[in-house]
Amino acid sequence: MNKPRHTIKIDLGTRSYPIHIGAGLLAQRAIVEAALPAGPLLVVTNQTIAPLYLALVQTALGGRSCAVCVLPDGESYKTQATLGLVYDALAAAKVSRDGAVIALGGGVIGDIAGFAAATWARGIDVLQLPTTLLAQVDSSVGGKTAVNHPAGKNLIGAFHQPVGVIADLSTLSTLPERELRAGLAEVIKYGLIHDATFLDWIDASLSALLTRNEDALAHAIQRSCQIKAEIVSLDERETGPRALLNFGHTFAHAIEAAAGYGEWLHGEAVATGMLLAAQMSERLGFLSTPEVTRLRELLIRAGLPTEAPRMGVARALELMALDKKVLAGRVRLVLLKEVGAAVVTADYDPAVLQSVLQQAVA
Amino acid sequence: MNKPRHTIKIDLGTRSYPIHIGAGLLAQRAIVEAALPAGPLLVVTNQTIAPLYLALVQTALGGRSCAVCVLPDGESYKTQATLGLVYDALAAAKVSRDGAVIALGGGVIGDIAGFAAATWARGIDVLQLPTTLLAQVDSSVGGKTAVNHPAGKNLIGAFHQPVGVIADLSTLSTLPERELRAGLAEVIKYGLIHDATFLDWIDASLSALLTRNEDALAHAIQRSCQIKAEIVSLDERETGPRALLNFGHTFAHAIEAAAGYGEWLHGEAVATGMLLAAQMSERLGFLSTPEVTRLRELLIRAGLPTEAPRMGVARALELMALDKKVLAGRVRLVLLKEVGAAVVTADYDPAVLQSVLQQAVA
Repeated sequence: MNKPRHTIKIDLGTRSYPIHIGAGLLAQRAIVEAALPAGPLLVVTNQTIAPLYLALVQTALGGRSCAVCVLPDGESYKTQATLGLVYDALAAAKVSRDGAVIALGGGVIGDIAGFAAATWARGIDVLQLPTTLLAQVDSSVGGKTAVNHPAGKNLIGAFHQPVGVIADLSTLSTLPERELRAGLAEVIKYGLIHDATFLDWIDASLSALLTRNEDALAHAIQRSCQIKAEIVSLDERETGPRALLNFGHTFAHAIEAAAGYGEWLHGEAVATGMLLAAQMSERLGFLSTPEVTRLRELLIRAGLPTEAPRMGVARALELMALDKKVLAGRVRLVLLKEVGAAVVTADYDPAVLQSVLQQAVA
Repeated sequence: MNKPRHTIKIDLGTRSYPIHIGAGLLAQRAIVEAALPAGPLLVVTNQTIAPLYLALVQTALGGRSCAVCVLPDGESYKTQATLGLVYDALAAAKVSRDGAVIALGGGVIGDIAGFAAATWARGIDVLQLPTTLLAQVDSSVGGKTAVNHPAGKNLIGAFHQPVGVIADLSTLSTLPERELRAGLAEVIKYGLIHDATFLDWIDASLSALLTRNEDALAHAIQRSCQIKAEIVSLDERETGPRALLNFGHTFAHAIEAAAGYGEWLHGEAVATGMLLAAQMSERLGFLSTPEVTRLRELLIRAGLPTEAPRMGVARALELMALDKKVLAGRVRLVLLKEVGAAVVTADYDPAVLQSVLQQAVA
């Protein structure tokens, strides 16, 4: 039997939970079942993942009956309408407060299923089984759940911690190349905001990561989850330091909305957004030009986009103003004070933001 | 300037908040504004309440600009679709995390607007301005928010405490007779589950309450909110004693669903549901026949219904099984051990429930 290579604890008092990282974990009944309550279960997954991994999870549940809700695949389905389908499945399966949702898939599935669990019967358990690199290092961990509103990404959501996260490295073998690269954007983010040594390691290990070397992936996921666990444990509901995890995301949300949800993968938008935030940091005197150049080259080597769509400065500012970090009408941005150390601030010259956007999106 | 007659504190650590009770409070800028954050505001109200009280609230907000979302009136609109309209209004008004929702209306408005606030940008402030007796004594207090799913009442919801509750007695002057009576059902509930002396007072003061004597209403609301505050402070998320507040509600939810949402007022269904729960308590040897008769007569004097729709026993059990208190497939019921003392239990003979339903709904 495969044991997890790593188990990281998210420390949130009564809402604490483990993240298990390892190969073949989805087939391990002891690991999958351990986290679940006694009541009715609903697996939420999508049309791409169901044929690959649903049977495995059902086997791991042993004889327990379990309803299934298979959603269409893609960010464009992260909507109130799709959420309604999950509610209908929860009602049909008579899932009550002692039941649970099992989210099997990438970030979109984890976010929708997590939000449905947060709001069904005013909150039931959710077990996250992330099958993409992005979901394993980021979206499945920390309790952020949401669906999109036409006016902006993740505007409808809740904080709702899972009862556990099982990151099965084996699922990454079927991940499309483009999604692997998108996941690496979030891994790079952790290095940039919190750990310059980890960023050096990513730089040196990039080809091992891109060729899906299991040891490299395991380390990347473990270190990313450790950093996320540390920050989330300090600030579960994002009143303070947790906002640092949104490095590049305010720009990214504008890119995703301008291009139409689903055109850019979230991680791709984050890559370009991080570069814009780094350019802002450079203009404010925090980063050197070679540091920004190095980031751009790393993103390019990782096969990630570095050019935002030409949406125009006014539209970009309008979309950024819908960001949930807006306070008193001012967009707060996450910037780098140096490589490995981020800061959240609304205290910047708007002309600098204007000029960075002018160059990038006009 | 009118001061609140009573201010009751809901004690929940960092989520504590006041309930102000008094006449003419909605016009008091100091009271209304004190609770609100600095960001953009959205008032959510309905077509009945808007012409009566919206201008008053806008005046109390002084020069602050504030968007308005006017919903159709009635329980049949407590749906995902109506919730979508509130989200659209929040987006149009660019309400961010430092903004707030102001819920001006009865229980339906408070529940929808509260749930929208719970889930917009993962949670923003909500100020409850209840304008019905039912909302003032019950639904605006305690942080339960929800919309209905076709499969059951309040199945989609969240716990989200308001930043304040302002119960303006003056608004009760425009309340339709039927809604006043429905609100009294919840007042009677507090006496039954927690305070036999209060029940005696209600019995003795019923005509003063029905003729809207301000002193009588103020006392009824104050004592109801005190009892609710005490129970909610012990058990914010209903893992224990808070379920006592659902006395009569499992039956009531079945009645409302069977009749079609909006046919019965919630308080009316609670009245009949309480009588069924009291009959169950009698059959189990907890209440005497005269005690149940006294309750029936009190409800009749209050102009409340005491006969459930003839939905059939099987349908009633099916609808009750969707109750959020179901655990391990068993419907937990709130019963009276004696007048003034309730208990939650799944440990009853199903044949007794069957027989009570047989008599009531077959």
